[in-house]
Amino acid sequence: MLPAGVRIRELDPHADSRGVFTELFRSSWELDVRPVQWNAVRSDANVLRGVHVHLRHSDYLTVPCGKAFVGLHDMRHASTTAGLSTLVELGDDSPCGVTIPPGVAHGFYFTEPSLHVYAVSHEWDPDDELGCRWDDPELGIPWPCTSPHVSARDASLGRFDELALLVNAALDLA
Amino acid sequence: MLPAGVRIRELDPHADSRGVFTELFRSSWELDVRPVQWNAVRSDANVLRGVHVHLRHSDYLTVPCGKAFVGLHDMRHASTTAGLSTLVELGDDSPCGVTIPPGVAHGFYFTEPSLHVYAVSHEWDPDDELGCRWDDPELGIPWPCTSPHVSARDASLGRFDELALLVNAALDLA
Repeated sequence: MLPAGVRIRELDPHADSRGVFTELFRSSWELDVRPVQWNAVRSDANVLRGVHVHLRHSDYLTVPCGKAFVGLHDMRHASTTAGLSTLVELGDDSPCGVTIPPGVAHGFYFTEPSLHVYAVSHEWDPDDELGCRWDDPELGIPWPCTSPHVSARDASLGRFDELALLVNAALDLA
Repeated sequence: MLPAGVRIRELDPHADSRGVFTELFRSSWELDVRPVQWNAVRSDANVLRGVHVHLRHSDYLTVPCGKAFVGLHDMRHASTTAGLSTLVELGDDSPCGVTIPPGVAHGFYFTEPSLHVYAVSHEWDPDDELGCRWDDPELGIPWPCTSPHVSARDASLGRFDELALLVNAALDLA
């Protein structure tokens, strides 16, 4: 089961003797995100990025090289899947794109050197970059790691319950 | 010097202890391409893809991993840079995005295992996939290789002069 509004689209890599070609995105696909910005991120093995949540923008995430575990938690009190936590595998063995709507907290854990490429529905805005500690027990994400490498900024993020109050107050006002 | 309409935009990778983050595209950047599709392509070392040319669609190309030499040749008789050939390096040492307009023939040579990510202004259309032999002397691209690995399809492409006639007849009609 996935948080409401999270969409997974299977991708279709074509391998030949030269390498692998993969369509990541078509605007005609129903993904619930109209990208205005695309980013590429390289990560070493055992890196965890997050946990983050957005009030306004949606993300559409792909992993054309390597492997990522995407941890998700539905923070929206009014959601039909409020409180749901899950882990989705993306990458070479599971070529998919995932749309993550506002109010769904998310983090990425990489078991090998990986590249993820993602689109956002609004240009980057530091005011829409909220987060909490990846290992807050209330998040309930079953991470496949215990001591990942996390940035100083992500390691200093606050508690899940404080974030949930803030996110739901903002979503109620929107 | 670049073929008229080819744009190079410097990208700004941010490296930290986890990896590298790079903005590939913002719709607010002036790139002369409004993407409707994004693709990712992995290539082994010594692979050459192309040479291709399009009548309708523009490409916007980035190389978030590895290194590519992008060969370009302006096939448009009516262009201010008609006949110009050049080679542009993209990748880890030269993080840039390149827009390639219709009528500019292009191919990609990879000196190491690489990933390129590119956007197109129209969804993929086999009728807009024309090409010629990468090593046709009239192309005049100073490839840094003599025996690249090329797909059977690309190896069977025809002559530059025949392609040039076809492309210009079509562009004149457009």
